[in-house]
Amino acid sequence: MLAVSPYNQLALSGVGRIKDIDIFDTTLRDGEQVPGIALSRDDKIRIALALDDLGVDILEAGFAASGKMEKEVLTKLGKSNLDAQVCSLARAVKSDVDAVIDTGIGMVHTFIATSDLHMEYKLKMSPEQVKSKAVEVVEYAKAHGLKVQFSCEDATRSDLGFLKEILTEVQDAGADSVNIPDTVGVIIPRAMSYLIGELKNTLSIPISVHCHNDMGLAVANSIAAIDAGATICHVCMNGIGERCGNAALEEIAVNLFANYGIQTVDLSKIGQTSKLVERVTGFTAAGNKPIVGKNAFAHESGIHVHGVMNNSLTYEPFKPELVGADRAIVIGKHSGAHSIQGRLDVLGVRFPAEQMDELLETVKKIAIGGKMIDDAELLAIVDNIMWKNDTKTKMVSLDELTVLTGKNTTSAAVVTVTIGNSDKRTAADVGVGPVDAAINAIRKAINDNITMEEYKLSAITGKSDSICEVTVMVMNVQNDGALSVGKAVGLDIVETSVDATMAAINRDFARQRNA
Amino acid sequence: MLAVSPYNQLALSGVGRIKDIDIFDTTLRDGEQVPGIALSRDDKIRIALALDDLGVDILEAGFAASGKMEKEVLTKLGKSNLDAQVCSLARAVKSDVDAVIDTGIGMVHTFIATSDLHMEYKLKMSPEQVKSKAVEVVEYAKAHGLKVQFSCEDATRSDLGFLKEILTEVQDAGADSVNIPDTVGVIIPRAMSYLIGELKNTLSIPISVHCHNDMGLAVANSIAAIDAGATICHVCMNGIGERCGNAALEEIAVNLFANYGIQTVDLSKIGQTSKLVERVTGFTAAGNKPIVGKNAFAHESGIHVHGVMNNSLTYEPFKPELVGADRAIVIGKHSGAHSIQGRLDVLGVRFPAEQMDELLETVKKIAIGGKMIDDAELLAIVDNIMWKNDTKTKMVSLDELTVLTGKNTTSAAVVTVTIGNSDKRTAADVGVGPVDAAINAIRKAINDNITMEEYKLSAITGKSDSICEVTVMVMNVQNDGALSVGKAVGLDIVETSVDATMAAINRDFARQRNA
Repeated sequence: MLAVSPYNQLALSGVGRIKDIDIFDTTLRDGEQVPGIALSRDDKIRIALALDDLGVDILEAGFAASGKMEKEVLTKLGKSNLDAQVCSLARAVKSDVDAVIDTGIGMVHTFIATSDLHMEYKLKMSPEQVKSKAVEVVEYAKAHGLKVQFSCEDATRSDLGFLKEILTEVQDAGADSVNIPDTVGVIIPRAMSYLIGELKNTLSIPISVHCHNDMGLAVANSIAAIDAGATICHVCMNGIGERCGNAALEEIAVNLFANYGIQTVDLSKIGQTSKLVERVTGFTAAGNKPIVGKNAFAHESGIHVHGVMNNSLTYEPFKPELVGADRAIVIGKHSGAHSIQGRLDVLGVRFPAEQMDELLETVKKIAIGGKMIDDAELLAIVDNIMWKNDTKTKMVSLDELTVLTGKNTTSAAVVTVTIGNSDKRTAADVGVGPVDAAINAIRKAINDNITMEEYKLSAITGKSDSICEVTVMVMNVQNDGALSVGKAVGLDIVETSVDATMAAINRDFARQRNA
Repeated sequence: MLAVSPYNQLALSGVGRIKDIDIFDTTLRDGEQVPGIALSRDDKIRIALALDDLGVDILEAGFAASGKMEKEVLTKLGKSNLDAQVCSLARAVKSDVDAVIDTGIGMVHTFIATSDLHMEYKLKMSPEQVKSKAVEVVEYAKAHGLKVQFSCEDATRSDLGFLKEILTEVQDAGADSVNIPDTVGVIIPRAMSYLIGELKNTLSIPISVHCHNDMGLAVANSIAAIDAGATICHVCMNGIGERCGNAALEEIAVNLFANYGIQTVDLSKIGQTSKLVERVTGFTAAGNKPIVGKNAFAHESGIHVHGVMNNSLTYEPFKPELVGADRAIVIGKHSGAHSIQGRLDVLGVRFPAEQMDELLETVKKIAIGGKMIDDAELLAIVDNIMWKNDTKTKMVSLDELTVLTGKNTTSAAVVTVTIGNSDKRTAADVGVGPVDAAINAIRKAINDNITMEEYKLSAITGKSDSICEVTVMVMNVQNDGALSVGKAVGLDIVETSVDATMAAINRDFARQRNA
């Protein structure tokens, strides 16, 4: 299931083995602060329930003082009997803590900045003022029965002496844990180990860590902190969060499991939770996002596909099932015969071995411009090769097309097509718009057995005369449900849609004649 | 310009300071193997020239044996007087090296797998066979005058004794450098330090490292290798590469500069090179991609925007200019009055302070569903608030619209509109398609001073009767170039486009009347 480097165990042999790490999820707070993410009340609750189901320990579900909706969400989650401890962010001011108290939840994560930069330019407060604010707010929250995690914002650029001072005082004031945020993502793992080690020697309450990924080190820094004694780790699903995001929940969980033998969340639910967060936030993880990206277990190049087919661990760190993901063998420019034959087997297509070289060459040629080749396209290419002499003749041609549309008018189209050399047919039909009407009329003229399975129009941005690209897939319901694909590019949406449909229909006719 | 953690220097004080690291770029080889990326000859040359200009030291521009085009690209680059050393990948077989020799370039990167897993399941060769293949191919390449880098594929899962043996033999055979790939992204930084340290004690030629990001540690592992004595680092622009990608060029370069004082590439050209690679490969870096993502220097939440406005280093590790990027202050659900006032100042809009609360509330409300609010939308919201009583009455209404289109036909449209209560006007016009014709006719009927600045049609996937969403932005060239936005959603592309245009025109009319 898993084949990490044997050097990992060797290198970790001297490291103390903590087995219990708490996952502090902030997908719904730091994650939601991403420009362009704006969740509704229901969105937040849906994600919260999924994260609870995944098994996070603490769920920072919002910032109570920031508005009515946030308070409602927190209140509702507080009453939902979650396994996770529901928590709210609060600045180190009493009114923010009051907002948390109002929600009835049991935990607050309160913060104030401790770096000279933040104290001078943002807070415009002296270190003494910052310290007394911190102590005061922790005492206030504790007096109201809340669990308290206290954060020194921008800790990794704060003076060590001052950090020790303020954290010792908040510990004495009753804080249950302290958090060390690398607010701007500026520390390196070795330095994080040093910092956490120093604080570990000073404090007796649990230490938490919150890392941002501005220099690509969020996960490494979090793990370095855990190595040095931190026992709580802030994360976001899919690595969302301010700017370059927070340490990704899935990367932390898999690293801890694979290299430290620490079980945190239910790994097998990572895939589904990631997809839910993608859908609800509208923020799709990059194709190459570790663990959850669509390419994380995708293989195209011949060498890799061949290896994976023999033993998937040759080119995968672990089997995708471990994290509830799927493997993909992609057909494209770098594909070898192994990949294509494997794909054709899955699709149930018997393809003559002696034509494989030609198929491979055609795939490579098309992929140069056409990028990834999906199943429908692969089938179309196969058809072309198997019956290529016949498809050179156009079997159906469009002689005339007229479309009438407008405002408060039913769109209508009239077409005349010629099938073969002489079978001329005319038909008219209506539709919900000009494209629908035109395609309906063509289908009527030609063959009612053809249904439109998919219509894809690429997004257009420009002026109203921009180029558009249309791909259609038609199915012949009589001919075993065979699928045929057509593509066209042009200036006119209606004409381009029709051209793509005609290309698909011609492919379908060629297939029927040769079947 | 730069404010990293002071703990970094402290933690690095005991580490030997290498100043000269060679950047081995494999964007055009490992990067190009990403499913869905398929570059043409010209694409590859464009990217290669940009990377050379950026200042990479070694440019692995392809895999000569994999096809004619690859050879042509390498040949051409070899003759282009680049500062970078052009290099090709080759398996440890003579025919692959012959293909490199044919191109006339000066360097080959040859590899064979050395882990038990790969030798058993993929190569089906014994360690002795692998070793003699390796030595043979290195000797062959050296005899033909090539510089040689030799890689042990899957090195991080290979036996240390065997690695030392084979690498010592290829060193004796004349290899100029050896590369340690973490092929499947399975090592942790501490283990990488150990491994490189061991090899450094065994070998006298330079050690290179090639890290994949399957567990989110590619950058940390590369830096750990450099800490331990590696002096060559494999990278890809934007972190592309097999599965979860390779160590990102930009993250390595910025880390080395910020924390080690090592200058590699020209950092200020990172932004433009990243964008070129995005455009040409079609693989856009994630919004939260470190250094080059569109959110890397974007701020929306009130606290962050306020901090950044006072001193950008409060919430940025360094100023975006360092890497040729721009800062973005985004208006959305989390915005505060500071952000919005700042944006309105940039747009030159004077907005009454007493209405700011209303504006803020409206922005938050729209952003819940509508996500990020761009400048045009912000202006529309401002208009609505400033003249809201007036815009409720429709100033221009569409009485009739008829559009005729078809195949081999010039699209034409006739419209009748009423301006105010009684000013009826009819006009006809043509266009490149039905949408263009309809919009041209409306513009003619109403006011030739209105130009279409932007037309956006969201991508449609479904059947031919799917819902489409259109946003248009019109500019009134007489009224100070004021921009007005309209949106519409519907089933009919033409009708929806017309509705969006009418909405924008009505907004423009309302503004004129109230100006």
